Amino acid sequence: MGVMRLGHVNLRVMDVEQAIDHYVNIIGMTVTQRDPDGCAYLKCWDEWDKYSLILTPTDEAGIIHIGFKVERDSDLDAIKAHFESERIPIEALDANVLPLCGRSLRFNLPSGHEVWLYAEKETSGTAVGDQNPDPWPDGLKGAGAHWLDHLALVCEFNPEQGVNKVAENTAFLQKHLQFKLTERGVAGPDGDMLVAAFLTRTSTPHDIAFVPGPSMGLHHIAFFLEDWNAVLKAADVVAKARKNPSLTPNRHGMTRGLTYYMFDPSGNRNETFGGIGYLGQPDRPLVTWTDEHVERGLFFLGGDNKAFMEIYT
Amino acid sequence: MGVMRLGHVNLRVMDVEQAIDHYVNIIGMTVTQRDPDGCAYLKCWDEWDKYSLILTPTDEAGIIHIGFKVERDSDLDAIKAHFESERIPIEALDANVLPLCGRSLRFNLPSGHEVWLYAEKETSGTAVGDQNPDPWPDGLKGAGAHWLDHLALVCEFNPEQGVNKVAENTAFLQKHLQFKLTERGVAGPDGDMLVAAFLTRTSTPHDIAFVPGPSMGLHHIAFFLEDWNAVLKAADVVAKARKNPSLTPNRHGMTRGLTYYMFDPSGNRNETFGGIGYLGQPDRPLVTWTDEHVERGLFFLGGDNKAFMEIYT
Amino acid sequence: MGVMRLGHVNLRVMDVEQAIDHYVNIIGMTVTQRDPDGCAYLKCWDEWDKYSLILTPTDEAGIIHIGFKVERDSDLDAIKAHFESERIPIEALDANVLPLCGRSLRFNLPSGHEVWLYAEKETSGTAVGDQNPDPWPDGLKGAGAHWLDHLALVCEFNPEQGVNKVAENTAFLQKHLQFKLTERGVAGPDGDMLVAAFLTRTSTPHDIAFVPGPSMGLHHIAFFLEDWNAVLKAADVVAKARKNPSLTPNRHGMTRGLTYYMFDPSGNRNETFGGIGYLGQPDRPLVTWTDEHVERGLFFLGGDNKAFMEIYT
Amino acid sequence: MGVMRLGHVNLRVMDVEQAIDHYVNIIGMTVTQRDPDGCAYLKCWDEWDKYSLILTPTDEAGIIHIGFKVERDSDLDAIKAHFESERIPIEALDANVLPLCGRSLRFNLPSGHEVWLYAEKETSGTAVGDQNPDPWPDGLKGAGAHWLDHLALVCEFNPEQGVNKVAENTAFLQKHLQFKLTERGVAGPDGDMLVAAFLTRTSTPHDIAFVPGPSMGLHHIAFFLEDWNAVLKAADVVAKARKNPSLTPNRHGMTRGLTYYMFDPSGNRNETFGGIGYLGQPDRPLVTWTDEHVERGLFFLGGDNKAFMEIYT
Repeated sequence: MGVMRLGHVNLRVMDVEQAIDHYVNIIGMTVTQRDPDGCAYLKCWDEWDKYSLILTPTDEAGIIHIGFKVERDSDLDAIKAHFESERIPIEALDANVLPLCGRSLRFNLPSGHEVWLYAEKETSGTAVGDQNPDPWPDGLKGAGAHWLDHLALVCEFNPEQGVNKVAENTAFLQKHLQFKLTERGVAGPDGDMLVAAFLTRTSTPHDIAFVPGPSMGLHHIAFFLEDWNAVLKAADVVAKARKNPSLTPNRHGMTRGLTYYMFDPSGNRNETFGGIGYLGQPDRPLVTWTDEHVERGLFFLGGDNKAFMEIYT
Repeated sequence: MGVMRLGHVNLRVMDVEQAIDHYVNIIGMTVTQRDPDGCAYLKCWDEWDKYSLILTPTDEAGIIHIGFKVERDSDLDAIKAHFESERIPIEALDANVLPLCGRSLRFNLPSGHEVWLYAEKETSGTAVGDQNPDPWPDGLKGAGAHWLDHLALVCEFNPEQGVNKVAENTAFLQKHLQFKLTERGVAGPDGDMLVAAFLTRTSTPHDIAFVPGPSMGLHHIAFFLEDWNAVLKAADVVAKARKNPSLTPNRHGMTRGLTYYMFDPSGNRNETFGGIGYLGQPDRPLVTWTDEHVERGLFFLGGDNKAFMEIYT
Repeated sequence: MGVMRLGHVNLRVMDVEQAIDHYVNIIGMTVTQRDPDGCAYLKCWDEWDKYSLILTPTDEAGIIHIGFKVERDSDLDAIKAHFESERIPIEALDANVLPLCGRSLRFNLPSGHEVWLYAEKETSGTAVGDQNPDPWPDGLKGAGAHWLDHLALVCEFNPEQGVNKVAENTAFLQKHLQFKLTERGVAGPDGDMLVAAFLTRTSTPHDIAFVPGPSMGLHHIAFFLEDWNAVLKAADVVAKARKNPSLTPNRHGMTRGLTYYMFDPSGNRNETFGGIGYLGQPDRPLVTWTDEHVERGLFFLGGDNKAFMEIYT
Repeated sequence: MGVMRLGHVNLRVMDVEQAIDHYVNIIGMTVTQRDPDGCAYLKCWDEWDKYSLILTPTDEAGIIHIGFKVERDSDLDAIKAHFESERIPIEALDANVLPLCGRSLRFNLPSGHEVWLYAEKETSGTAVGDQNPDPWPDGLKGAGAHWLDHLALVCEFNPEQGVNKVAENTAFLQKHLQFKLTERGVAGPDGDMLVAAFLTRTSTPHDIAFVPGPSMGLHHIAFFLEDWNAVLKAADVVAKARKNPSLTPNRHGMTRGLTYYMFDPSGNRNETFGGIGYLGQPDRPLVTWTDEHVERGLFFLGGDNKAFMEIYT
């Protein structure tokens, strides 16, 4: 019951056709729908719902909203009732306000990021179908990403002024939507200030992460790849296409993920994230990264971490 | 809420010391407890609860019981009430009847297999700990399996006499414990007779599978490995140790799993199962394997399937 | 100096178009030339010479000849002089008798297999070129094999009648063309009867192998893949295309090669062979496989070796 | 005939015991000999000769000499005669002057680096032996490197003053020891100034490389790993051991090598180098990297190349 997974992300892009070229030929998605406002809807080959990414043409990069899919239609009622009982603003919207979806709910995280919840989205099946399916389809492009795996949001963080939206968002998702906190980074004189948080509703290490910054924004959206070899292929694909500079293959200490970053043409950061890491089950002990280990937590394999940090932040 | 995952399997072995040698040096588990009856309790390095395998000395191989861990203690009350309202026999047991566990419930599947449910098990953390953990520990042995992933049970199947415990078990877990059916094999003149079923409560492709046979039994227990390279390593480990014949590395069509089988010294079949395959989420379209594709469904990479079938069955 | 590598193999196929479909869409080769006799010439993407495979239309499968490329034109003179001094029949042929090649030599191995030597073949470069090349080209098909790696010939073997062409061929290549014997299988009451031989002129574990049989023939031709993941991809490609049954992924004990076998539509056995194994250098200790270990030597990962043996032989 | 491979490297280290700890526990070598001067001799598990690395205690890091093994004892006479006819200084030394080796020759490259040639070295076989060998031995440590693969030397390069020891060394090895130039980096107004060179005598992409610098020195020694997964393991091993900063996993454009760099405790750079890349055969077209592609040539996967370049140079 409740939130089932990250269903989609709605990104701002400055040139939709360039963005489509990136998400199709580098990431390996397919365009499944266009709308009169010029938005494009895309899905990965291993997803069944009709889109996991909406590209909206605007004049700057960034995130517009996140969509979480809930398990049952009745979950929407339960969540709305709970939010109202807690006096948290939440808006109910008719079917198709969220394109191709049933009725939905909209609210904002403490950080200000906009979240939609929905129980139904038009589906078109995975690219291998559901009858005697092959393990992967012919004609894969680019990195051939399986699915949208998670995203990371930058949250306002200014401890001198008592602002820590990483902590507020984390508490919010834990309390109101039953997310599991799988890993956290802590800092501060008492070692108890939350500076990074990884939360999940599936059995994966994270569906969403919060990292600190001067103001709210998008850190990255991440696509799932099966293993370290697939990460190399993704990095080769980007290098062969002479695309935007990015961070080279590494392992995250946090989540153990095998990772490679790139940018879409508008500057939205993409991650290709390989391997399952572990099962982020409800009773798994919470993992804590302390201040002096945070670089290893971010990029376990090290290297020129100072330069990495500059780019990464 | 409800069943969280496969928590452990209790196997019969004919020589506990030989069995320990296998599960420690080939699979990579650790012995965490012994008891006065000669039973051994083992866990994988990436599991936090104190055991996922109980080895009980007897005079023949096979399975004694399965343990599912539920998310909350109150789930036990809810499940007991539900079973009683459905007039399904279920027994409540005190803490520590199931060793190192809190109070538990015991019932039998329609196939006769014994199942225990518990919410609490003594924990000892993963081998890398929860403070700034490395991605894997030093001193891994054998295949270095991460965790007990799933098991497959042989269920009585005699359609001429109207007996299909594969179908009964599947309906039972779906109805009473909210398992998700991710994949199924069907046969029969109308193509609607269930001959194989894969069910999950986590986000993995399956926590438990049912396959047909002349009478109830164990088909295999499976351990998680991260990828295809880890499957090769597992197979090399077995070959280097001159251990029991087994099926060579292959891919399952069903679940896409990368797989390698071996036997423990008593003849219990073990699988090492690599890769995540996909996320077995509640709304994922049910995958169906029809009669003429069942060999590909079992062993996608083919080969001498007839010989494989003989061994496999 | 002398033989540099296996340059090409000329196979008999019963339907050239079907064979092309196989070598292009499953193996990943490209057709570079056709001739008036209906022959097709193909190369792998990572080869520079214009072909490594000639497909000749006939009414049954099998091998017509092997081509070895020598390092220098003058090597042809030296080899011809040596053969003549040893009274071994050898024929000198003009340029272009061997298509797209310079002058050549032709002789037969003791087993009867026909061998051509040449120093020049028309070249068209690798698919990534020689100026700032990418590590792999766009548009790879099927297994995307890098190059023709080696071949294995079946040689008449009838020890009761004193016939052992495996041994004769091996001694011939060692003595007259300076091949290095890297591994051997031995049997017989004294353990000194050569039953399998692996020989090399490059630094790879083998360029050619000899295995025993009732009469001369082809055992397989093998294509190089980079690693175990590429072997899985090759096996998936064959399975997805519903092609001929084959042996599933395994590791050879001999050469350590990661291997997967299939058949072309005429029944010529193909191997995709992954990983370097080791460097077959002149001073590497000769590896010996004794009778009781020969199954592990062939298929290290075991499985149903008896069934394997039946198919393999 | 002639040079067969890179046989060993003699490095300066500031603390032999610390260096041994690194080469044994991180790289995976074994100490096979110590001598009264405090030197340590080590080999990799897949090498048969008794050492491929000599560690000599001194007060700074660096390289003392390179050893190339020639194929036959008579090659030493031929090389000596050739050098003398070309009036290139070369010194003949008795057996055991080079420890555990037969008679040897010593000369200097134009860059000043000292090279020894020998045909015989005491051998102890690989760790898996030569009778029915397993593909890998039990008890591997650290990265479990297979063998010393190649080394790269820094050569004085000052084109303003007409000094280019990269070019001189390359011409020297090509002319006098029949090395094959597989890849080169070029720069300069006419695009013909050699700034990097990769040369081989085996069938691998390189046995030795020359890169430019202010004065002669060692760039790195490299150890062979089988594939990209083994590169990740090596990087994990270093990270888990909290060892010296290094460059993270990447792919070289030049040679296609999958690579990861670290430092030994004295500061000698080590590379773990995965995959075969291609066969560096005598007739393979020479690959050229032009000035504007040199960064991709060094680190194909990009990233923060400027920071990389600073560390790498």
